Amino acid sequence: MTETEQERLQGYLEDRKTMVDRALDRYLPAAGSYPPVIFEASRYSLFAGGKRIRPILCIAAAEALGGRIDAVLPAACALEMIHTYSLIHDDLPAMDDDALRRGKPTNHMVYGEGIAVLAGDALLTDAFRLIADEGAVSGADPGDLLSVINEIARAAGYFGMIGGQAVDLDSEGKGVDYETLQYIHRHKTAALITVSLRAGGILAGGTPRKLSALTAYGENIGLLFQIVDDILNVEGDAVLMGKETGSDRKRGKATYPSIVGMEPARRKAAELVVSALASLTSFDDRAEPLRLIARHMMERKT
Amino acid sequence: MTETEQERLQGYLEDRKTMVDRALDRYLPAAGSYPPVIFEASRYSLFAGGKRIRPILCIAAAEALGGRIDAVLPAACALEMIHTYSLIHDDLPAMDDDALRRGKPTNHMVYGEGIAVLAGDALLTDAFRLIADEGAVSGADPGDLLSVINEIARAAGYFGMIGGQAVDLDSEGKGVDYETLQYIHRHKTAALITVSLRAGGILAGGTPRKLSALTAYGENIGLLFQIVDDILNVEGDAVLMGKETGSDRKRGKATYPSIVGMEPARRKAAELVVSALASLTSFDDRAEPLRLIARHMMERKT
Repeated sequence: MTETEQERLQGYLEDRKTMVDRALDRYLPAAGSYPPVIFEASRYSLFAGGKRIRPILCIAAAEALGGRIDAVLPAACALEMIHTYSLIHDDLPAMDDDALRRGKPTNHMVYGEGIAVLAGDALLTDAFRLIADEGAVSGADPGDLLSVINEIARAAGYFGMIGGQAVDLDSEGKGVDYETLQYIHRHKTAALITVSLRAGGILAGGTPRKLSALTAYGENIGLLFQIVDDILNVEGDAVLMGKETGSDRKRGKATYPSIVGMEPARRKAAELVVSALASLTSFDDRAEPLRLIARHMMERKT
Repeated sequence: MTETEQERLQGYLEDRKTMVDRALDRYLPAAGSYPPVIFEASRYSLFAGGKRIRPILCIAAAEALGGRIDAVLPAACALEMIHTYSLIHDDLPAMDDDALRRGKPTNHMVYGEGIAVLAGDALLTDAFRLIADEGAVSGADPGDLLSVINEIARAAGYFGMIGGQAVDLDSEGKGVDYETLQYIHRHKTAALITVSLRAGGILAGGTPRKLSALTAYGENIGLLFQIVDDILNVEGDAVLMGKETGSDRKRGKATYPSIVGMEPARRKAAELVVSALASLTSFDDRAEPLRLIARHMMERKT
């Protein structure tokens, strides 16, 4: 990526992240609401420094089709709330048992396990409330909003993120083969990323052909994102990332590099960038952010 | 209640329960789906002998307004899935730490805490999928379905069930006053019961006036339900109920009888039945099941 592209992308990402942060703050009940602890716990994790990748992808997909940003903001924020709930629950002692996330104590370390479970439940529940409620206010078509709720629930549910986490949980400490690892990555990470793009596309009135293209792009960068995550867990800079590196290896967790080796993992990542870009050929210049994001993912350090 | 009324109600409840059980079985992915454990765990709790009170109230409200049962079945089943998820999470060691529910080991005792958290998450997620997806198939108005999703998410979320559970969790072992207890009951139990009735009413095309009447009925029987639960926890028959009695007292949990005394609790329950019936005066004979349910709640033994 050239320096100009780099700057253009950074400007885009920062601008859209600010929009998402402000909207999340507006949508979520104030920290002082009763009972305070559940709102504090929710906000603690929701504003813990997330990069807002899913909402930005949702917005960028809508923009690539000429859609209005404010029409997709509720769905974009809902996707971040669902992502945050999944992190809170995944960090629980009964799951991955993590004490740190983005350099800060995890939710249950601060608020206790009971409240961490409830804060996650509440974020998930409120995500659907947000799409149905604020989505309707934004003037989106009710049928489109139902499709978005349906698709997001599928991507986050049994045959998506939760299915992936269940297999991951079941696999820890066991020898995991390539197919199982692919299953985990596709479901635990790529499904929600893909539906982020589709949600933006649906609300922008995308044709079935454009939605298919966004799906292909999402599946490629979703897998890419996870492979780069795995690579960074081995080679990343712990200070930059705000979390321990090498943790996957220590707990015997299967990763791309551990199964196929570091060089093939890198090669696979490069192929995925090419495929992601290829899926966007029918889009015009308004899809530039999506193209830059795919290329940037390969080069990210955190 | 006369014997004929008793029989009529039993016939109605059994018939609607069968409909709900069949629909739940049809809507939920088969037990053999991959990864098996998450579907098994979900089905274990969903088919553990629940009385299906919330879905039946949803159906009865629709019927009271002349609505079609199949148009409300997805929402009715979603309400039962949300109720079941809340029981799974409430039973967790970090919450109420219960080993038995309806005479059977709780979800986490059978599948472990990690899967119990995920099974609850999945049931909650799939509940919204069901309304958006199957609801649309049933031919309901998309705007009405969005209202139902919005209202159910509110009733189950921060300012409803989860808020009530957070206060309950925070209160255990502390001296709880009457206002706090009312807050817990209204939010933890009555909110989901009330929205069950409203969802049925909305999907049956109820006028604002009819919806208000259903809301009043729901708030009354929701509180009634919880007070009778508290009374049964003191005086109920452990064998009939399939769970220990006296558990609230043992763990120092505040209940209606413990705060206001047993006789005032009974009096309050009787008043709530009267209020519930009064709120239905503008309904015709099609509301008979709702009237019988309110009267029956006072007399229930389990």
